[in-house]
Amino acid sequence: MPTELLQASSLVETARRLRDGDRSVAAELDARLDRLAAVEPEIEAFVTEDARRERVTAAAERLPDGPPPERPPLYGVPVGIKDVFHVDGLPTRAGSDVPPAALTGPEAAVVERLRAAGAVVLGKTVTTEFAYFHPGPTRNPHDTAHTPGGSSSGSAAAVAAGEVPLALGTQTAGSTIRPAAFCGIVGLKPTYGRIPTDGLLPLAPSLDHVGLFTADVDSMRLAASVCCDEWHAVTDPRAPVLAVPDGPYLEQADSAGLAGFERAVDALDGAGYTVRRIDALGDVETVNGRHTALLEGEAAVAHHDWYESHGDAYHETTANLIERGREVSVGALASARASRTALRERLTELLAEAGADCWLAPAAPGPAPEGIDSTGDVVMNLPWTHAGLPVASLPAGATDGLPLGVQVVGPFGADERLLAWCAGIEGVVADA
Amino acid sequence: MPTELLQASSLVETARRLRDGDRSVAAELDARLDRLAAVEPEIEAFVTEDARRERVTAAAERLPDGPPPERPPLYGVPVGIKDVFHVDGLPTRAGSDVPPAALTGPEAAVVERLRAAGAVVLGKTVTTEFAYFHPGPTRNPHDTAHTPGGSSSGSAAAVAAGEVPLALGTQTAGSTIRPAAFCGIVGLKPTYGRIPTDGLLPLAPSLDHVGLFTADVDSMRLAASVCCDEWHAVTDPRAPVLAVPDGPYLEQADSAGLAGFERAVDALDGAGYTVRRIDALGDVETVNGRHTALLEGEAAVAHHDWYESHGDAYHETTANLIERGREVSVGALASARASRTALRERLTELLAEAGADCWLAPAAPGPAPEGIDSTGDVVMNLPWTHAGLPVASLPAGATDGLPLGVQVVGPFGADERLLAWCAGIEGVVADA
Repeated sequence: MPTELLQASSLVETARRLRDGDRSVAAELDARLDRLAAVEPEIEAFVTEDARRERVTAAAERLPDGPPPERPPLYGVPVGIKDVFHVDGLPTRAGSDVPPAALTGPEAAVVERLRAAGAVVLGKTVTTEFAYFHPGPTRNPHDTAHTPGGSSSGSAAAVAAGEVPLALGTQTAGSTIRPAAFCGIVGLKPTYGRIPTDGLLPLAPSLDHVGLFTADVDSMRLAASVCCDEWHAVTDPRAPVLAVPDGPYLEQADSAGLAGFERAVDALDGAGYTVRRIDALGDVETVNGRHTALLEGEAAVAHHDWYESHGDAYHETTANLIERGREVSVGALASARASRTALRERLTELLAEAGADCWLAPAAPGPAPEGIDSTGDVVMNLPWTHAGLPVASLPAGATDGLPLGVQVVGPFGADERLLAWCAGIEGVVADA
Repeated sequence: MPTELLQASSLVETARRLRDGDRSVAAELDARLDRLAAVEPEIEAFVTEDARRERVTAAAERLPDGPPPERPPLYGVPVGIKDVFHVDGLPTRAGSDVPPAALTGPEAAVVERLRAAGAVVLGKTVTTEFAYFHPGPTRNPHDTAHTPGGSSSGSAAAVAAGEVPLALGTQTAGSTIRPAAFCGIVGLKPTYGRIPTDGLLPLAPSLDHVGLFTADVDSMRLAASVCCDEWHAVTDPRAPVLAVPDGPYLEQADSAGLAGFERAVDALDGAGYTVRRIDALGDVETVNGRHTALLEGEAAVAHHDWYESHGDAYHETTANLIERGREVSVGALASARASRTALRERLTELLAEAGADCWLAPAAPGPAPEGIDSTGDVVMNLPWTHAGLPVASLPAGATDGLPLGVQVVGPFGADERLLAWCAGIEGVVADA
């Protein structure tokens, strides 16, 4: 019965009916909790939690009681929070066996923003261990024999299954864009720093981004307007000129992924978009190596105290990350950190030289791999994450019944324009 | 004529006469500028600067014009600022050949505090290159054939020579306490973090402290009350029980320094103080090694961009620091960082076990070395800096006409109590 699991719902529509009073907050939350009861046994997107209904009801009762025009933009909207953000009243487990008492902290800034906008935290969603690769129990709602991707596994699956219309993730390598693609929904990794990371358990602070999941681009614009610093609505700009980074970077995709990507490119071409193929990221292996060194080295620093006190609780994949990170030299770390801005500038220059506005690439090497022991490969995501550029993942066709995604990569800081462009691209590539 | 150079003046008295109107700000500044003209040719404490008189006069004219009771605590007081802090209107050179345009930034928070308290920046004082060891031209006012110590060379010399009654320094290893001792004045390195380091060029952020120089302890209490976060005046507590850390740490002092220190201990004993000798810091070599690894590693990070762009401008000592730092592993860095709090806790426990209140130790291995090619050794300072404990240096006798100093090390965060204790100790050890 895999198809029953798919029921992603629009954040815009959910928020509208709650603000307009077409549906009460209590009714909305009841419906979502019923949905959880129905699908959680199969997908396990949420961290098990007693007393969810009581907690959610209490949170809803604390919402401001104004008439519709005074209601905040996400009034009563249920949201899922990846279990690496601190949320007052809920433990932070981070997919780890480290005691939650060692992982406490003040509520995350982005969670505060969501609450201030009226959102109700339905619960914490499953993350891989400390947002690295050791997987959790979540399954892909498109086919429960497959991974939903990671590390934001639960958030992507929860949105795809209609448990919540908005969920928070993170991305340090490919943890938002990849699961969004695998689960056939929209993911946004905004510009580095555009959403504060205070209250997020760090993995590698120079690379950690807050990410968002919604069903569609319009919903993502609403979510981003609440979560990002100083969001400015932009009127839809002219259609962008798209640049495809030809060369060794693109060749990392698998054959099914590459075929699907070329179908998306053809569809855009057919719809009148200009798509330019540029030789770019010829040094992708160097970029990936620097990203990996930076991630490992910073993870070793960020986890130092926890690992010293609770190293036995770390699973092998994460323990090896810390151990490798400890061997990284300060010089390699500083070079890797500096390479972020150098790459950002180079990618910006390449776009300018080509007269293009944004990059278009596969969001993952292919569809979600079978099994849940691996959350898939991040190679298509590393350069864009490293450069801190804003990236949106859009559903773009399928292969063997599993969704594919394209990622659109915008100029640094131009998250608003990126999503405006994506609103046009979304419909063209959806069924490519 | 070395003795003519010594004319340290009380900050309390300078501030009092300016606030009470016994002396006009213009007269005070004129007198100090005349003093500069007289002594700078011999001691070179200040960074050469054109138009000093015009700039200082303009700053004085911007002071609030209220009657004495409304005047802020440092109304019109001329101060010297170590040239690693950003000061609006003056370049930051940091004793370096790196172009000042590469070293710009917003005014340092502590400079803003001084200005808000009415102080007038007389000028920037000489620092070793980037507050490490490559020396500047400053000479010791006690004997110009000797170093004033470093890295806050100019600030210590300027206070000892009466050019200013208060100057800012920094300490990452021993850069405040050592020059204070060599120049026969009072130095304070407050608790780590007690004075914000915003607007200070970093050397090693986990170890960087802002330091202060004055002529006496009363003056230091006034200076600290302006510069430190949330200063609470304390009434003089009971006389402290002093702990001397016997063992390999103390044995790092030279024979003249050790003899002088024991004279100070005897004087305190004679004055009724309880002095307990404790076996402590038996692992001082390990502590020093961790401190050095942390300093080197963080310096390599902090200087990464400057060194990449202007590596040729670095003198050998500092270049070698960066190069060594690049080889430090992330694991060593994280261990060294964690060792700060471990050491702090250990030193605190030792005091408690001994029923003592604070530590007493030589401020430097001995008197200021001859020549200005070396600023002297930091071994007596490393553990206390590493632990982030508050330290005050007090003049304590002399050897061969050169001042010696003792350092009193207080409990973490207890800067107020430390200075209250020092007010009593100061007179006992001064002529030991």
